[in-house]
Amino acid sequence: MTMIKPRTLSGFMELLPAKQAQMERMMQILRDTYARYGFAPLDTPIIEDAQILLAKGGGETEKQIYRFAKGDSDLAMRFDLTVPLAKYVALHYNDLAFPFRRYQIGKVYRGERAQRGRFREFYQADIDIIGDGKLDILNEAEIPSIIYEIFKSFGLSRFQIRVNNRKILNGFYAMLNLSEKSGEIMRTVDKLDKIGTEKVKTILMEDCGLQEPEADEILKFIAITGSNAQVLTALETYRGRNEIFDLGLDELKAVTENLGAFGVPEANFAVDLTIARGLDYYTGTVYETTLLDHPEIGSVCSGGRYDNLAGYYTDRPLPGVGISIGLTRLFYVLDEQGLLNPEMNSAPADALVIPMTEDRGAAIALAQQLRGQGVRVQVYGEQKKFKQKMSYADKLGVPYAILLGEDEIAQGKCSVKDLRSGVQVTVEPSQAAELILKDQQAAASAAVILEK
Amino acid sequence: MTMIKPRTLSGFMELLPAKQAQMERMMQILRDTYARYGFAPLDTPIIEDAQILLAKGGGETEKQIYRFAKGDSDLAMRFDLTVPLAKYVALHYNDLAFPFRRYQIGKVYRGERAQRGRFREFYQADIDIIGDGKLDILNEAEIPSIIYEIFKSFGLSRFQIRVNNRKILNGFYAMLNLSEKSGEIMRTVDKLDKIGTEKVKTILMEDCGLQEPEADEILKFIAITGSNAQVLTALETYRGRNEIFDLGLDELKAVTENLGAFGVPEANFAVDLTIARGLDYYTGTVYETTLLDHPEIGSVCSGGRYDNLAGYYTDRPLPGVGISIGLTRLFYVLDEQGLLNPEMNSAPADALVIPMTEDRGAAIALAQQLRGQGVRVQVYGEQKKFKQKMSYADKLGVPYAILLGEDEIAQGKCSVKDLRSGVQVTVEPSQAAELILKDQQAAASAAVILEK
Repeated sequence: MTMIKPRTLSGFMELLPAKQAQMERMMQILRDTYARYGFAPLDTPIIEDAQILLAKGGGETEKQIYRFAKGDSDLAMRFDLTVPLAKYVALHYNDLAFPFRRYQIGKVYRGERAQRGRFREFYQADIDIIGDGKLDILNEAEIPSIIYEIFKSFGLSRFQIRVNNRKILNGFYAMLNLSEKSGEIMRTVDKLDKIGTEKVKTILMEDCGLQEPEADEILKFIAITGSNAQVLTALETYRGRNEIFDLGLDELKAVTENLGAFGVPEANFAVDLTIARGLDYYTGTVYETTLLDHPEIGSVCSGGRYDNLAGYYTDRPLPGVGISIGLTRLFYVLDEQGLLNPEMNSAPADALVIPMTEDRGAAIALAQQLRGQGVRVQVYGEQKKFKQKMSYADKLGVPYAILLGEDEIAQGKCSVKDLRSGVQVTVEPSQAAELILKDQQAAASAAVILEK
Repeated sequence: MTMIKPRTLSGFMELLPAKQAQMERMMQILRDTYARYGFAPLDTPIIEDAQILLAKGGGETEKQIYRFAKGDSDLAMRFDLTVPLAKYVALHYNDLAFPFRRYQIGKVYRGERAQRGRFREFYQADIDIIGDGKLDILNEAEIPSIIYEIFKSFGLSRFQIRVNNRKILNGFYAMLNLSEKSGEIMRTVDKLDKIGTEKVKTILMEDCGLQEPEADEILKFIAITGSNAQVLTALETYRGRNEIFDLGLDELKAVTENLGAFGVPEANFAVDLTIARGLDYYTGTVYETTLLDHPEIGSVCSGGRYDNLAGYYTDRPLPGVGISIGLTRLFYVLDEQGLLNPEMNSAPADALVIPMTEDRGAAIALAQQLRGQGVRVQVYGEQKKFKQKMSYADKLGVPYAILLGEDEIAQGKCSVKDLRSGVQVTVEPSQAAELILKDQQAAASAAVILEK
């Protein structure tokens, strides 16, 4: 047999079991949270007709996409979950009820230049709400609440959902008669955090060709900060000068005024006029989410409102609002920064049953009883020394070993050893299950991310 | 904007939301069951180095594989979950604890000729237990119990796990000095159900070149049927003539003798000497699972024991046992046959909150409270007529509408309408949650597959 050295391609995440358990926990939190907000799970093919995926075209996408022929077919792998959603909604329009709320957690592919922390295969975890012609602002208002629930469930408290409205920006630039340059200006303003006010002003004047008063107006506008109420009050002073601006301000107020009802604390939410989002197609509320102690990670959950999801596939107007979490990158960065909770139970089982008699029927029956009560159980069946059996449990991080010898079998009991404390008790199987489940429940609510 | 007609490639499953909900339920049952038996979830890349995936080579695989170049890389998409597991175990050997128990539910790709019911992208749901050098028979004995739990949880009772042991077959053919022809003979015997005894005998004699007494011996052997005890007793009469046979018989007895402890009813299990499994690499127990009322579907869960998982990547002997469920095909066939339970709650929400006042703060707060108690809730925010709102709930199949008008708000209550019975009650929010959750729990335990 010719041997080939095993390897995994660079840019493709492949986790060891304990880390995978942490990733699974994050996915489970996402699924549960999305479901509680009434989103339907969706699954679409990873491979689509290349024509469909590349309908929009665009340089980076065409360069990065995995595209290949098979027989006569021109195939490509999806590079996001939005284009497949657009296709799905256009294709199945008659079978869907609108607003159509779906979540999708799936792998996407981008053949980027390989570098540390960049992935060619990565999970996105998206939700979108698609309206048929219209979509009420309430949907935009709900999004921060979903983001809040997710990151809280991950174990975080020090994060901030930053919100803006593209109509406010577009209306503001229209007031200054700078609509045509607004894209260029926003891209410059977006660099504020990195390069500072002075440099932004210079670029605005030298590269964008703005007059100094115009540049000052813009800097004054994006310098509006404070509590949500303070920012909204400051924005009110611009009202009446542009219809689009006024509409955007109404939308922003609708989004902020229900935060309390949605249970989002003010500390986790900020109106931030510097948020624009690069993508051209956002037309209303835009969202970013940052970890307050780790601004260097950038936004971990972003999205916004758009007016036209599927213009390449249908002439029906399909407005929507959505957010996306780059799960693989988020997981990678959290791990790199040491923010994943090492105390989380990442073992594949809650208990390892170790039969101490030759006949293993009793051990098997015990395991089945525990499983029936919801305990995750392995039976250790290998012919090894006792010490090796315990070391197996240790290596897996299994919290409990359950020993079953002749004495226990005769008494209808089992010996449960907590491998962390070393404490051992001999109890009836149903008591063992209760003991372990109590522990398991505590573990299940343990944070997957540790705040430092 | 140039418009492109939206389409999904043939051979790629894309489900509408209600069907997707049923598929998700099946996946959740698989994840839960695998986890209760102590299997660790694993996720490996869909794209691997083509050299790695094609290490074994072989005609069909090379023809069907999706293989393409990106830059200098020769890439391919996985066609099963076993080869990536072999690579994973060989690559991460030092970081794993053995026996290594993993489950993986993931998409695999085969560029087969498109035809009805054949998929080019499909889910496999696999478990494997990999030993380091050795692996105790207990692991083989545990597999039927896992299969039983899964199909029982799907809602089935009329299914049968059919088990054989390759050593018994190999030993038997060695007794007859027919080892060299055993592959050919087994492939012929495998057709017994389809073509009948006489035709099998003819092929054995004419094509395999067997003497009539040899053919008769084989037909007599595979005609051994009855209860497990009867089959084992009949097999005992062959003991002592071949070591491999005797070892296989011991293994088969070990697998069957613990069925009771594992909670597998005799009715759902049969020793079946005609089961061989096509793949050459099985060396011990082999498994198939059939739906008793739908033999035409074939085996819905198959696998077996093998001695050498990763011989192409490492010279360590890594024996294992595993089973695989072809989930996409299973789902497709169940749906085609009308066996998916239409009564299963496949709505994306348990309740639709309909605000009846202009200020929607109270409706939002109510929705949040219900979500906090675990209810899946949508708030209907669109400006439509009441009738259209109710028709939205109907179309989604949401079981409850919750109406919140001024009266309810003033009383701190809400009106919960069961959309199936039409019965409406006005209760406090926590009572509403209890009412809905009770229903939800009943629905959650409803069968996803309906036996007919």
